[in-house]
Order: sequence, then C-alpha cells, then structure tokens
Amino acid sequence: MKLAVTLALVATTLTVSLPASAQFQKPEDAVKYRQSALSLMGTHFSRLGAMANGRVPFDAKVAQDNAALVETLSKLPWAGFTADSEKLRSKAKPEIWMDQAKFKQASETMMADVAKLNVAAKTGNLDQIKAAFGNAAGSCKACHDAFRE
Amino acid sequence: MKLAVTLALVATTLTVSLPASAQFQKPEDAVKYRQSALSLMGTHFSRLGAMANGRVPFDAKVAQDNAALVETLSKLPWAGFTADSEKLRSKAKPEIWMDQAKFKQASETMMADVAKLNVAAKTGNLDQIKAAFGNAAGSCKACHDAFRE
Repeated sequence: MKLAVTLALVATTLTVSLPASAQFQKPEDAVKYRQSALSLMGTHFSRLGAMANGRVPFDAKVAQDNAALVETLSKLPWAGFTADSEKLRSKAKPEIWMDQAKFKQASETMMADVAKLNVAAKTGNLDQIKAAFGNAAGSCKACHDAFRE
Repeated sequence: MKLAVTLALVATTLTVSLPASAQFQKPEDAVKYRQSALSLMGTHFSRLGAMANGRVPFDAKVAQDNAALVETLSKLPWAGFTADSEKLRSKAKPEIWMDQAKFKQASETMMADVAKLNVAAKTGNLDQIKAAFGNAAGSCKACHDAFRE
C-alpha cells in the first residue's frame, strides 16, 4: 500500500513537472536526453555496486551521495521515450512503444527499487545497502532484457 | 563571505563524494559522463529560460523542479575533465587543462549562480527567477566562450 502511494506520488510529480508535450524540439533531443540520464544513472549506480560487491572500501557518505543521485536521475529518462523518437536508431526496442503498460510498470519498479536503495544508503548499514542494491540491479536488468537491444 | 563558505562546502562535498582517482575506467567514460551531465543540465536550464523569456507560461512548480535538478547536475561534470581525457576528441579546449585554476573558478561561479537560481525558484517570484537566470546564463556563456570549441 505504501509502495502504491509512493508510485502514485512519483507519477504525479513526473506528470506535473514533465508534461509529455513540447519537452523536446527534435526527436533526436529526446534520445540524447534519455541516453544521458541513463548513462549518468548507470555510472553512479555502479559506484554503489563497487561497494556492495566489495571491490572498493565501503564509505557511507559516498554511498549516500550516489544513492541520492541515482534516485533523482531515475525519474528522468522516461520523458525521452517520446512517440516521435521510436524510429530513431538507438538500443531502445520497439516493445517500449508496443507494450507501453509493461514498460511503464518496469520503469516504476526500478524507480521504487532505487528509492528503497536511497533509504538503505541513509542508514549507513552495508548489509541493507547490499540487499537493496541487489533488488535494484535486478530491476535494471529485467528492464534491459525486455526493452534494450 | 557567505558565498565563500558555500563554495567551500561545495568543494568539500565534491572532494568527499567524488574522489579524483578511480572514477572512470577509461578516459572515454569520463568524456561521456561530463557530456551527459552538461547535456541534461542544459535541457533543464533551457526550460527555465523558456519561462524566464516568456516563451512558455510561467509555472512555479515546473520552475522549482527544473532549478533543483540544475543545481544537482551542476556539481557533476567537473569530475569528468580528467587528465587522461585531455587528448580525446571533444569540444573541450586545451585551456581547461592549461589553466586549471581559471577553469575551476569558472565552474565554481556557475555552481554558485545556479544555486542562487534554485533559491530564486523556490520563492515562486518570476522577476527573481529572471534575474537569477540571467546571471546563471552569463556564467554558462563565459565558461563556454573560454573553454568550449
């Protein structure tokens, strides 16, 4: 229930702040925008992964900063999957536009999981971060498997 | 004085959360990172500009959301101007690496100006937003003129 409320709030925020129309002058701009957001998110997510997987020493402040950024960035890419950008060359599969409900669900699962990762990072507890990172990584992968070439 | 303290805090935060070493596996990753951050920042900054210049109707909530994002994003690109990325093809001029103190100063001016823009956006007062937007746009342009092809 709490999750449903959170998702509804996220969706409302996105609708209010990022109206679907007139966001991008050209479809190419929409592609560049979503790719930039996903790329930045991936960079900061992988820094959490490096700590979760023990490749770099755990630093609670670094984890918090990266998790907060990932949550902020997670809300951005979706506006870039505009209808007029479907035919442009990118890794985006046509399934994004063919099954929009499923894509939206996948995006909401990811946003919810990285929001939980941000909560976990604020605790400073590495075990909680590891668990939340694993869930978020799973939702990234599921979406990539279904919707990215 | 207050500005100096703010900048010092920003610098400290960046140093703590984004150590210069081991941020990027390849110099190409650093270029992609800074370009993504600057591109996203430009998109959201231009949405504030559209309202400041009267091209789209003023919406205080949209302005606040965009200004907050711009401030967050403004802290990111600098870590991507790594020493080993100097020779890669991009719009970055060699002056970035030849006159690092001047480039750092320009980056800090921009970050301070967009932080003020975020403060102005929170007031919901369009005149204050216009003034702060103008200052921030000026610092963007000054840095681009000096350091971007």
